[in-house]
Amino acid sequence: MSPLPTSAPDDAAAGSNDARLPPSLSRDLRRRLGPSGFIEEPDRLLAYESDALTTIRGVPLAVTLPATRDELCATVRLLYEAGVPFVPRGAGTGLAGGAVARSAVLVVTTRLDRILGVDPAERLAVVEPGVVTDAISAAAAPYGLRYLPDPASASACTIGGNVATNSGGPHCLKHGVTSDHVLALEVVRPDGTTLELDRGESGGLDLAGLFIGSEGTFGIASSITVRLVPRPEAVRTFLALFGGVSDAGRAVTEILEAGVLPVALEIIDGTTIRAVEASVYAAGLPTDTGAALVVECEGSEEEAEEQMSVALAAVQAAGPREVRLAATESDRARVWRARKNAFGALGRLGPDVMLQDAVVPRTELPTLLPRIEEVAERHDLQLANFFHAGDGNLHPNIVFDRRDPDQARRVNAACREILDLCVRAGGTITGEHGVGLDKLKFMPLVFGEPELEAMRSLKRAFDPTGICNPGKVVPSPPSGGGRA
Amino acid sequence: MSPLPTSAPDDAAAGSNDARLPPSLSRDLRRRLGPSGFIEEPDRLLAYESDALTTIRGVPLAVTLPATRDELCATVRLLYEAGVPFVPRGAGTGLAGGAVARSAVLVVTTRLDRILGVDPAERLAVVEPGVVTDAISAAAAPYGLRYLPDPASASACTIGGNVATNSGGPHCLKHGVTSDHVLALEVVRPDGTTLELDRGESGGLDLAGLFIGSEGTFGIASSITVRLVPRPEAVRTFLALFGGVSDAGRAVTEILEAGVLPVALEIIDGTTIRAVEASVYAAGLPTDTGAALVVECEGSEEEAEEQMSVALAAVQAAGPREVRLAATESDRARVWRARKNAFGALGRLGPDVMLQDAVVPRTELPTLLPRIEEVAERHDLQLANFFHAGDGNLHPNIVFDRRDPDQARRVNAACREILDLCVRAGGTITGEHGVGLDKLKFMPLVFGEPELEAMRSLKRAFDPTGICNPGKVVPSPPSGGGRA
Repeated sequence: MSPLPTSAPDDAAAGSNDARLPPSLSRDLRRRLGPSGFIEEPDRLLAYESDALTTIRGVPLAVTLPATRDELCATVRLLYEAGVPFVPRGAGTGLAGGAVARSAVLVVTTRLDRILGVDPAERLAVVEPGVVTDAISAAAAPYGLRYLPDPASASACTIGGNVATNSGGPHCLKHGVTSDHVLALEVVRPDGTTLELDRGESGGLDLAGLFIGSEGTFGIASSITVRLVPRPEAVRTFLALFGGVSDAGRAVTEILEAGVLPVALEIIDGTTIRAVEASVYAAGLPTDTGAALVVECEGSEEEAEEQMSVALAAVQAAGPREVRLAATESDRARVWRARKNAFGALGRLGPDVMLQDAVVPRTELPTLLPRIEEVAERHDLQLANFFHAGDGNLHPNIVFDRRDPDQARRVNAACREILDLCVRAGGTITGEHGVGLDKLKFMPLVFGEPELEAMRSLKRAFDPTGICNPGKVVPSPPSGGGRA
Repeated sequence: MSPLPTSAPDDAAAGSNDARLPPSLSRDLRRRLGPSGFIEEPDRLLAYESDALTTIRGVPLAVTLPATRDELCATVRLLYEAGVPFVPRGAGTGLAGGAVARSAVLVVTTRLDRILGVDPAERLAVVEPGVVTDAISAAAAPYGLRYLPDPASASACTIGGNVATNSGGPHCLKHGVTSDHVLALEVVRPDGTTLELDRGESGGLDLAGLFIGSEGTFGIASSITVRLVPRPEAVRTFLALFGGVSDAGRAVTEILEAGVLPVALEIIDGTTIRAVEASVYAAGLPTDTGAALVVECEGSEEEAEEQMSVALAAVQAAGPREVRLAATESDRARVWRARKNAFGALGRLGPDVMLQDAVVPRTELPTLLPRIEEVAERHDLQLANFFHAGDGNLHPNIVFDRRDPDQARRVNAACREILDLCVRAGGTITGEHGVGLDKLKFMPLVFGEPELEAMRSLKRAFDPTGICNPGKVVPSPPSGGGRA
């Protein structure tokens, strides 16, 4: 593959893979995991060369797929004893290159997919890391419960990956992200031993909280205890269509200032709408719409109805062209299908999509959205934006063709300008996708060297030999002498 | 003072204080902080020998009271350079001996009491650590906002202490504890330099989350950014009176199973009711009541009213003797005054109170409450219980006279039995007061040695020389060779 537009200059080189798995380790892993648990054939390894951010790649030395907790511990211990670095991976739906293994072995958790227990009285479930996020809610449904965080990829991604990146989702506005819904973890440490981590509510430190969002650099969660919450009695959803994104941004401010906190407040811009409408996920939106705002309220029948009416009144102040209520459950499902497949639909507009994941203070939305569009225009690039507007988490996407080196250079420059704008407005470089490899170079935009060094010291405390997902999340020290 | 009933055998010895402050450090601190910022006179130091848990004491080497951020950094740096350990302290309302300084200098934050800013649009406030918790809500009130966590001592305790212990409070059932309401921190590290910590939502690790609840063992928060939330439109409160605590516990289960999550669900037992009714905080409850349950719902007028009516219907299943609605705001205030002053009122029953802070799965409440009472009866001790029933956080208090060595021994034995019961039922040893010195010996009940060692390694990462609040939170390794 060609070099990567927004990656650091050394990324392409790092993709080349001279290291080899020691033959004795290969033999031990194959013996322990069996033929369905160990992959070393070069052409089969290619399937694991990237996560969902296809612009960052690297072929792993081998792929391990432990199917039991014991196999997981044994795999990590064998790698540790051989001194071979490893990278944890769930379903590979990540968007920051966090699951790319270069000169390292992938430890894939998808076969660890058992729901170990659902306790409706205590409202919790204990699951293995490879359980698909939506499957937790499915298991809880008979008790009127659900697992709340809903990344757009919830039908494919795994809870272990959600823990690694502290995933959000459209419905996390009101009820919080993964970290707010994980009660405890068992983790396999980089040496293959296990630790029971809880949230510090038993006294002591919030070890589980520190692990959540550490992107697989501290170990691998082998069992995850999640909170379940009651399914709402009623859900009300409407779509408001606007001439442009800054009007939609103003509508978000009006709703929040009216004192309503919907469970979801999502904006999709005109370019994205046109891509979605041309796809199988078409939701029947006029293709000359500048922006669509999705508002969803939940609660008892009375609560949902009341919040809805306040939100409907509030959006009027931003001058919508049209407001559409989702009258039926199938209307509602169609709206969400369109939103959740927006990223995929952008594939229609060009061969490559540079997905950003910036955050801005939500009050800055109306000011920043036109400035972000201006950056893309100035670099002659096509911008498609969709975002969790309620918490200011933007996904400005640039559609391009990386085979055109000049275009790739302009994408790189525009991305940095956009993130700079967001950081200078008091925001940050990633809202929910994580740092992985992709955002490493932007970390110094938001963190000082002392803060980065504090992160490195915690990493060393959990992973003294630096064997577990090395080189991710925290950039190396400026001198280049240390270990991230 | 006499030896301490529930403290480790060496606690009394540790209270004796042979160490002295080096004269040059004394001179430097006095010069830097002025006469109102430095205390070394033995009789004045006595005022700082304990926090609100008066059974654990120790006279500090000196007390420093920096009044500015620069003074705070300079104080810590001077202590660090002299190699003299220090203990952070807010208002001293803690209940676990966490702010007791033995052979160490106290760094008291109460003069760092400025509200640095309130941003109503972004719904946050930036405050110094010595700001009294209630003062944040007072500053936010003109904007219709409030700071949510409400420890019973909110009118006296400081936000810095709340961060240290990750404080809860009666209204944290629905909306979460301190950790859920702190957005970012600036902290002074044990060497006097500062770090900006955020919640890992900017990418990277949740450094702020790790610091919250570390009980002053990682450094001292110098500036705290907290979330503000809208004041509710309506609040509805009622009291249900029962024959005994297990009936009240059943009522809690009924309410939660009816799908309502009140903002507060508090139980006060008969012994506590009688103590409160004999005090100036009397709320007019019949003194033959076995237990009172306080239920509070918040939201829009419609929401609060609806939740209330569901909760009222649900408690009927547990057979209350009487249900009283708080019809006016002054009725409501009277109920909460009684609850929040319950601990103080117990002072009427005996010279000493051993306050516990156990947690049990809330579904275990009806089973465990009579068993806890049985333990106290068997040891011939007077138990008074009040607790955050919605999240199973119990405060079983034993009233006693520590001058009676046999009674003190029985208190010690009963406390361990009660905590053992709670831990074996899937609970833990502290819900909100922290570990401090008081719960150190119980940490191995809930954590294995590998988990404790993981905590020690994080402590070392933040505080390599072990100068900051040494000996708290995490017990020393079994060999005694390491450093907590």
